[in-house]
Amino acid sequence: MTTPPDGWEARGRPTSWFRRFTFAKYAETRQFLEELAALSEEMGLHPQNINFATTHANITIEGPDKGEPGETEHRFAQRINALAAPRVEP
Amino acid sequence: MTTPPDGWEARGRPTSWFRRFTFAKYAETRQFLEELAALSEEMGLHPQNINFATTHANITIEGPDKGEPGETEHRFAQRINALAAPRVEP
Repeated sequence: MTTPPDGWEARGRPTSWFRRFTFAKYAETRQFLEELAALSEEMGLHPQNINFATTHANITIEGPDKGEPGETEHRFAQRINALAAPRVEP
Repeated sequence: MTTPPDGWEARGRPTSWFRRFTFAKYAETRQFLEELAALSEEMGLHPQNINFATTHANITIEGPDKGEPGETEHRFAQRINALAAPRVEP
């Protein structure tokens, strides 16, 4: 089983990975989501679910074919962390 | 109390409006979300919450200051309906 990157929590069975990102304002949340959409296009991967409101985005990543996340998803989650890093509220 | 437009359901107290939009594929879901972001910018309004996955987007609209949706939100919800109309699955 692949261990999720920093800040992500393994949940459920089959395992999915979850992380909540919090931002100071709506414009930052939007910017993060736009960059995430571009990253998804680049990698040919997208989160299974995104739930967002004014100042947060909750992201769930599954593995391929509803299986467990693996090395590919690990890289994807790390790159999402990197996108959020300049803006994320502690 | 303002009645929600077609397809929207009034929920909770204070009332918010909810609608689930379903699409044939991820690219259509993304397109809808991008157009919704542009509409939000134009109107200076955004949904209180959006939850989306590969082929659906669930949208919740609140009124100003956590109050009930009014005429402004009614126009916003109608315009969201119009965005989705060409693509939405029955």
